[in-house]
Amino acid sequence: MKNLINIIQNSSKVAIVTHTSADGDALGSSFGIALALEGMGKKVSVFLEEPVPKMLNFLPGQHLVAEYKGEFHDLCICVDTSDMKRLGERAEIYSNAARKITIDHHTTNNMQADGLWIDESAAATGEMIYKLIKALNVDISRDIAINLYTAIVTDTGGFRYSNTTPESHLIAADLLSRNVPFTDIIKKVFDTVSYSKMVLMKKTLDNLTLHFDGKVAVSYLLYDDIKSVDAQTDDFEGLVNVGRNLEGVEVSLFLREEQPGVFKGSLRANEYVDVAQIASVFSGGGHKRAAGFSMAGGLEETMEKVLSEIGKVL
Amino acid sequence: MKNLINIIQNSSKVAIVTHTSADGDALGSSFGIALALEGMGKKVSVFLEEPVPKMLNFLPGQHLVAEYKGEFHDLCICVDTSDMKRLGERAEIYSNAARKITIDHHTTNNMQADGLWIDESAAATGEMIYKLIKALNVDISRDIAINLYTAIVTDTGGFRYSNTTPESHLIAADLLSRNVPFTDIIKKVFDTVSYSKMVLMKKTLDNLTLHFDGKVAVSYLLYDDIKSVDAQTDDFEGLVNVGRNLEGVEVSLFLREEQPGVFKGSLRANEYVDVAQIASVFSGGGHKRAAGFSMAGGLEETMEKVLSEIGKVL
Ligand SMILES: [Mn+2]
Ligand SMILES: [Mn+2]
Repeated sequence: MKNLINIIQNSSKVAIVTHTSADGDALGSSFGIALALEGMGKKVSVFLEEPVPKMLNFLPGQHLVAEYKGEFHDLCICVDTSDMKRLGERAEIYSNAARKITIDHHTTNNMQADGLWIDESAAATGEMIYKLIKALNVDISRDIAINLYTAIVTDTGGFRYSNTTPESHLIAADLLSRNVPFTDIIKKVFDTVSYSKMVLMKKTLDNLTLHFDGKVAVSYLLYDDIKSVDAQTDDFEGLVNVGRNLEGVEVSLFLREEQPGVFKGSLRANEYVDVAQIASVFSGGGHKRAAGFSMAGGLEETMEKVLSEIGKVL
Repeated sequence: MKNLINIIQNSSKVAIVTHTSADGDALGSSFGIALALEGMGKKVSVFLEEPVPKMLNFLPGQHLVAEYKGEFHDLCICVDTSDMKRLGERAEIYSNAARKITIDHHTTNNMQADGLWIDESAAATGEMIYKLIKALNVDISRDIAINLYTAIVTDTGGFRYSNTTPESHLIAADLLSRNVPFTDIIKKVFDTVSYSKMVLMKKTLDNLTLHFDGKVAVSYLLYDDIKSVDAQTDDFEGLVNVGRNLEGVEVSLFLREEQPGVFKGSLRANEYVDVAQIASVFSGGGHKRAAGFSMAGGLEETMEKVLSEIGKVL
């Protein structure tokens, strides 16, 4: 980190970039470091591929968002991004800068940089930015704290995912002491459901059936259902858990008709069934308790095939 | 707390009690302190009114649960309980003990005790038990940590409720460092839905309608719907949030037909509407963003009356 601090201290015009479809960690890390550098008297610009999503429009520091017009930067800092391709149109900002810093927690990072800091044990890049700002001797303002808290809660699912560490909580403790309106942030980030997601959730519940004495839950969404609500990818997130979370259920199967006659299957297990094994029968894969596959065929036929495999290992 | 430590150190046969319908904080605090005292070489019994709920059956320390047979205790410790009435049948265990300690975070506590420790700023009684065990110089074992972590996550909604403090996170950091299987705990505590709750959720989604350009969401459950699934009180918890969490919604109204022809109404607002004001029109009350009322009448009629009041302040 000493190397990074050196580079930052010797720069005056800094560009910040992060991956396309920027999420809470990407934006919180970007605005967090941007505000800290602004506080150090540097000229800072944050370059984004898309507008800040509505869900994250409360993040402070958005006055630093700028449009790239080919100007020169003596430093570009890239956060939460494992690959140049994920910078989209802004790859050239990084390439053209005199010096480059990359700060990331992805295991697969392959970025080139003058200052490269990868910490795979960090639950969020926001945790690394927190340490960097401390090391730069810049005060963590309430605005910075809001960004870093948002980064950490989004990447840890609110301290629930297995990547959460004692350090995630230690940092959260310090951030909360800076008057972060955390209940408002939680509400914005976790408790807002899009209309299309609500409709898909309703259909998922309507289509849910139980099998093998309630040990297996199956639900599905058909191509026309999905088309009719103009669904976004993240609308499907978590729908397989509707069945998984039901008491008594060991295996949950969720089928989504991606293309007419082609189903994407998600499998989740709670305690003991190895669903990666089941997915592999259909040329899919994944982890023991979370796996997936893709299969051509009708709904009934697909359900029956997968249920028959599940039945063998219950 | 010195007083409490003194009393504990001079006791050898200790009874632990907590409130009826014991929740995660009540049981986690009970088993947490019980295991610590057992480690100090004391004879410890935990007396419960009901069996440990299935959702919390993973808590360690259940070998200390005992049946009361009128035996004498030189100390009874009562946790997370604000009133003798909430001890149910076990009030006599507390009354009959030579000395009494009460540890609680409820604002309304009116217990009598030789050692009384009330800390309204604690998010969970489990936080106070953590400090007490530290002060007793007993090592926080993994089993104790599992109990205290469960106590804190249940009473803070997983660090999401406004009672969460920097200290909640500091304690969580220390507990996680003791190898607490926190993802399993989170799953047990937050991600298990009863079949009856799932059916009610489905009906709530089916019955949901939007009004005033999507700013108001209304849903309801009829008496027969509720009867047909043998619903428990906590099955209704959060159903008003289905509408509240929908993007663009400011006010959510949820009507539940408690008795034929009598509706219990829940109102939630997101940003600016004072729903306590609306509830008061129907002789109800509550807070600005969360209020309730009860009203006799038909469904349509009730909905129209409340919607008309909401319309006045949108
Ligand atoms: Mn990240
Ligand atoms: Mn409590």
